[in-house]
Amino acid sequence: MRQYAFRPAEALAEYPEKSQPAPAPQIPEGALVIADQGVFAAGGIVLESDGTFDPVNGQHDPTGQTRTSWMTTPDGRDGWNDIFLCKGYSTYLVDQPRRGDAGQTSTAQEISTVTQDQAWFTQFRLGRWPEFNEGSQFPQDEASIDQFFRQMTPDTSAFDQTVIADALVAAFEKSGPGILVTHSQGGMPGWEIGARSDKVEAVVAIEPGSVPFPASMNPDEITYGYQIPYEEFAALIEKPIIIYMGDYIPAEPSDLNAENFWTMVLAGSRQFAEVAGSMGGDITVVHLPDEGITGNSHFLFQELNNEEIAGHLYAWLTEKGLG
Amino acid sequence: MRQYAFRPAEALAEYPEKSQPAPAPQIPEGALVIADQGVFAAGGIVLESDGTFDPVNGQHDPTGQTRTSWMTTPDGRDGWNDIFLCKGYSTYLVDQPRRGDAGQTSTAQEISTVTQDQAWFTQFRLGRWPEFNEGSQFPQDEASIDQFFRQMTPDTSAFDQTVIADALVAAFEKSGPGILVTHSQGGMPGWEIGARSDKVEAVVAIEPGSVPFPASMNPDEITYGYQIPYEEFAALIEKPIIIYMGDYIPAEPSDLNAENFWTMVLAGSRQFAEVAGSMGGDITVVHLPDEGITGNSHFLFQELNNEEIAGHLYAWLTEKGLG
Repeated sequence: MRQYAFRPAEALAEYPEKSQPAPAPQIPEGALVIADQGVFAAGGIVLESDGTFDPVNGQHDPTGQTRTSWMTTPDGRDGWNDIFLCKGYSTYLVDQPRRGDAGQTSTAQEISTVTQDQAWFTQFRLGRWPEFNEGSQFPQDEASIDQFFRQMTPDTSAFDQTVIADALVAAFEKSGPGILVTHSQGGMPGWEIGARSDKVEAVVAIEPGSVPFPASMNPDEITYGYQIPYEEFAALIEKPIIIYMGDYIPAEPSDLNAENFWTMVLAGSRQFAEVAGSMGGDITVVHLPDEGITGNSHFLFQELNNEEIAGHLYAWLTEKGLG
Repeated sequence: MRQYAFRPAEALAEYPEKSQPAPAPQIPEGALVIADQGVFAAGGIVLESDGTFDPVNGQHDPTGQTRTSWMTTPDGRDGWNDIFLCKGYSTYLVDQPRRGDAGQTSTAQEISTVTQDQAWFTQFRLGRWPEFNEGSQFPQDEASIDQFFRQMTPDTSAFDQTVIADALVAAFEKSGPGILVTHSQGGMPGWEIGARSDKVEAVVAIEPGSVPFPASMNPDEITYGYQIPYEEFAALIEKPIIIYMGDYIPAEPSDLNAENFWTMVLAGSRQFAEVAGSMGGDITVVHLPDEGITGNSHFLFQELNNEEIAGHLYAWLTEKGLG
């Protein structure tokens, strides 16, 4: 989905005389004036499986979220789509191939019907089901939790990084230059897209599932991540990159593998920044608690302080000449 | 997805003096001014199956379109969402349960990978693959045809009218009173929603898959359709209803069952209007060629004259006090 923002600055360009007060921006011809927009789920049922959820060994099948994630928050406030439209950015929201409205596929897989909200609750660091982490920024009323889990939809076919990257490189050819914002599993195709598309001006990775390193490195030295061809790595780090990581990432090993995973991602991200930096790259890793922004889960762009975090990103983009 | 339109009339209500010229509408506080919006597909591949397509006996597996259908046209012009937003309506676009971004399900089915664009081309009355019908309003360049078929996405589970109707009744509880617009397979749940929800003010059915009749009728007298409880039928026809049917619906039996199907739907729709009318209902069946609007397929709201047809519907809505 694409939405082109109206930029007041453009409309005002026809009034260059500094001596005159700038008029209030008028509605440009052909523009849509939208009082409000968003998305919600309605209806459906909630099923419970027998047994007791085990947070330590809890497993989950592949499933994920869609462009819906950017269009609202669990409690129905403005999502990052609206927040960045208001800052004057045009936006393109993506359903990746084999998921959601882009579910058509030539290589189908079985659709999972496993009940797994409790596993995701833990994996996403909302807390240890049914308890939220102390100080959590996630809206904790029942309706919000219900809306959040209904944002998930199963993959119609296996996750394939190349298929996704091919589609996004093609999407950038249609959109023109832009900033690529990825989340979670989308992080890995994101690195490939950043390397391959000359239309990508910067990469913003929110808690990426993994981080890349050049094939030239000794694999034993890699804390966490995967290796890609040197040329691909070099092409990627020509662009400014920022990685955001939330709260509740344990410094010491936890009894929850779901939590330890994020400790690895954070360490890997810092090493990625270091390696890329030594090659001239401009990589910033933001561990939000270090900035005094606490209480965030894996879905930091949807939580109660999502506007504050958007502001943090906007400041970085502005610094990079992309404001 | 929901978008609340900004109505200039409301903003102007504070200037009641007729003697003063109405000022140009200002951008209301908090509103989004969108220069343009839409949706497109990018990337992916096209696979061909062996053999020769048989239009007479061609079959297709269940699959369908999503809210995407309302957000654009195959050639990227404004979809009905934008057209009706511009007329001052707020819009709610739906992915029905078990499809697209609402694909999460507890009763999965196998995902079809059958290549079937040629079958749909015929079923939707675009023409007889690869020839378009003469005078077709469908944009016929390759890119448009490609975009159109990429709007389809498979069901993750079996079509279940009650599940869909339950979800939409719940959605209307959230949205408040509104006009229900259905298309194709969505027509059947649409009749149920119209009967069950007191928030539905009118039903607009674009080429519905079938039409309802009261259980009290002699089934042998039904041309085409299905029976529902008398009370449900009576509740449905309390609301004004309009059915739109496009062109290329044969008056005489065709060698294509795909075409004969629509002959039955048109006949059934007319009988539905007659039966409901005899019970005091206000049902309009618009066979577009009878109005001088020719060349439309099953996707009449996406074709080159989609704005003209939207205007036709808008005139009807205005007549019913819903303008």
